[in-house]
Amino acid sequence: MTTNRRLTLARRPHGLMAEGDVRAEEVALPDLEDGEALLRTIYLSIDPTVRTWVSEARSYFPPVEIGEVVRCSGTGVIVASRAEGLAIGDLVYSLPGWQEYAVVRDDAFTTRLDPGTDLLAALGVLGNNGVTAWIGMLDIGRPEAGQTVVVSAAAGATGSIAGQLARLRDCRVVGIAGREDKCAFVVDELGFDACVNHRRPDFVEALRAATPNRVDVYFDNVGGPVLDAVLRRLAMHARVVLCGAIAVYNAEHKPPGPANYLELITARARMEGFNAFDHWDRFGEITQELASLLDTGRLVHREHVLDGLDRAPGALNMLFTGDNTGKLVVQVGSPPGPTGDPAGG
Amino acid sequence: MTTNRRLTLARRPHGLMAEGDVRAEEVALPDLEDGEALLRTIYLSIDPTVRTWVSEARSYFPPVEIGEVVRCSGTGVIVASRAEGLAIGDLVYSLPGWQEYAVVRDDAFTTRLDPGTDLLAALGVLGNNGVTAWIGMLDIGRPEAGQTVVVSAAAGATGSIAGQLARLRDCRVVGIAGREDKCAFVVDELGFDACVNHRRPDFVEALRAATPNRVDVYFDNVGGPVLDAVLRRLAMHARVVLCGAIAVYNAEHKPPGPANYLELITARARMEGFNAFDHWDRFGEITQELASLLDTGRLVHREHVLDGLDRAPGALNMLFTGDNTGKLVVQVGSPPGPTGDPAGG
Repeated sequence: MTTNRRLTLARRPHGLMAEGDVRAEEVALPDLEDGEALLRTIYLSIDPTVRTWVSEARSYFPPVEIGEVVRCSGTGVIVASRAEGLAIGDLVYSLPGWQEYAVVRDDAFTTRLDPGTDLLAALGVLGNNGVTAWIGMLDIGRPEAGQTVVVSAAAGATGSIAGQLARLRDCRVVGIAGREDKCAFVVDELGFDACVNHRRPDFVEALRAATPNRVDVYFDNVGGPVLDAVLRRLAMHARVVLCGAIAVYNAEHKPPGPANYLELITARARMEGFNAFDHWDRFGEITQELASLLDTGRLVHREHVLDGLDRAPGALNMLFTGDNTGKLVVQVGSPPGPTGDPAGG
Repeated sequence: MTTNRRLTLARRPHGLMAEGDVRAEEVALPDLEDGEALLRTIYLSIDPTVRTWVSEARSYFPPVEIGEVVRCSGTGVIVASRAEGLAIGDLVYSLPGWQEYAVVRDDAFTTRLDPGTDLLAALGVLGNNGVTAWIGMLDIGRPEAGQTVVVSAAAGATGSIAGQLARLRDCRVVGIAGREDKCAFVVDELGFDACVNHRRPDFVEALRAATPNRVDVYFDNVGGPVLDAVLRRLAMHARVVLCGAIAVYNAEHKPPGPANYLELITARARMEGFNAFDHWDRFGEITQELASLLDTGRLVHREHVLDGLDRAPGALNMLFTGDNTGKLVVQVGSPPGPTGDPAGG
């Protein structure tokens, strides 16, 4: 452990990430200043938001600058520390970025996890995806028993949980996904009532057939033509929860907005954006509820793990080509051994 | 009084109404059946919604069919009656359509007005426009003292009232209108804090300068590029009230939606549609509040009256070319005389 392998942004990508957009570098591990600790990255969370961070778009973080390590959240273990709140062996959730080792501080960006925490689940269902699904579906969408709830990217990290939460509220839950095997996963393993493949030529008719009572809550992860199609199916007083827009983030030119937005007037409906980070103070309470649903088998989750830091750019692309099922993760290092050895088992 | 002049829909208009889209007809007055009364039209309310009614678009009413009188709300006086709830001389607000005489019933579409009611005000500030402004601004927009409120079509029938209601809540109110003299009217006569002409080449910069603290509530009557521009100025937790979209109704092909809608995520904001008709039970209470604001001089209204039924199609076009200032009305007949003679003074 003397060097750090990292991927820095070499130029801003156009559309999907291409060869040459990031540069692999081997650099010496830095000396720590007072207040700093060294995190060894174990898992990186591959999220659509990373694509916006490497663009120049306005976001809740400034854009990643050329030459900087690509920003990315992940879990890992503290292997050296001059920070009071962080001890060697501590498991943390932080923003290590696309690199093997990251300098972190005991601040809002770094959260200590209980010993024994499942570092994979902590990235997804018991982390940002789970809390995002919870806030978006239950607080913004407010589904009621018997109502129809539609979730796009239903096989994805957030959509899969959002839909299950609505199902637990006795809603009719209809997923939208981009491949037949994902639709099967959504229905057979996640327990949605139906799932429609948006790449079918008869998608609009299939969506109509799957939502005979129209749509009371739409949890949107994709934007684009799928959003437009669901807008035409809104029930009176429907809630459209804007979680993300995978169809938009990757576009080189800003695509047109939802042409059917005036259906919001016809249906007296609302479309609302949110960000789970605003509810940081509730992460503990919400992840505890989610953990209890997991423990009792009422919530299912799946991770899709790719091995090796260098797979991160390709992994990010998979979100946009739709080639992942479940939470997409890149494994950078080995988890702490059974004895808790921070250097890995 | 033996014939009825009326304008029927001859073909569906493309864009603005053109010669030949309506047909002027002189027909005999109908014999009344039991339950029916004859309304003599005095004022017609020229509203954007009429343009959607003569198209095939989904709306809260079915489209006007070819050969039917163009649907339109208005005020008038009952001149003959076989309906129990309607007596000769009664002033009513109803849906007479583009014609001198209309058969009406004592039903939800026809409201009796108090004797002495100002039939012009009853069409606008004390009618649907006033209630629409009230519900949209106060119930959906919920402006708070000190917040910044933007209203498009600020010189129009609904926008002019919506903005004044926010001003009465101690908000900074910025209008958007399409002509310099309208902007002057909005600031000088309606008391808005500022007004920006959206036809200025530097509109986006001017809007930014007029909203230094960004926009907490946007009351949108126009859609299109103006909506997109305001979306980029949203403050955190902003409310976008969708009242209408004059830029969209008239378009021959559905224009693209608001490309900047993802600003709703960035700003954790909401966009919500509504229709004042849903709150029919509150019309009395709300118009009473509005009347009291008028009586005490705290609310200003202006009507733009054109004379003669045949001006109705051109009047409708004025809404889209922006040639009206204030509530646009076509006067079809003379008001009841001072003695209340229903045949007109």
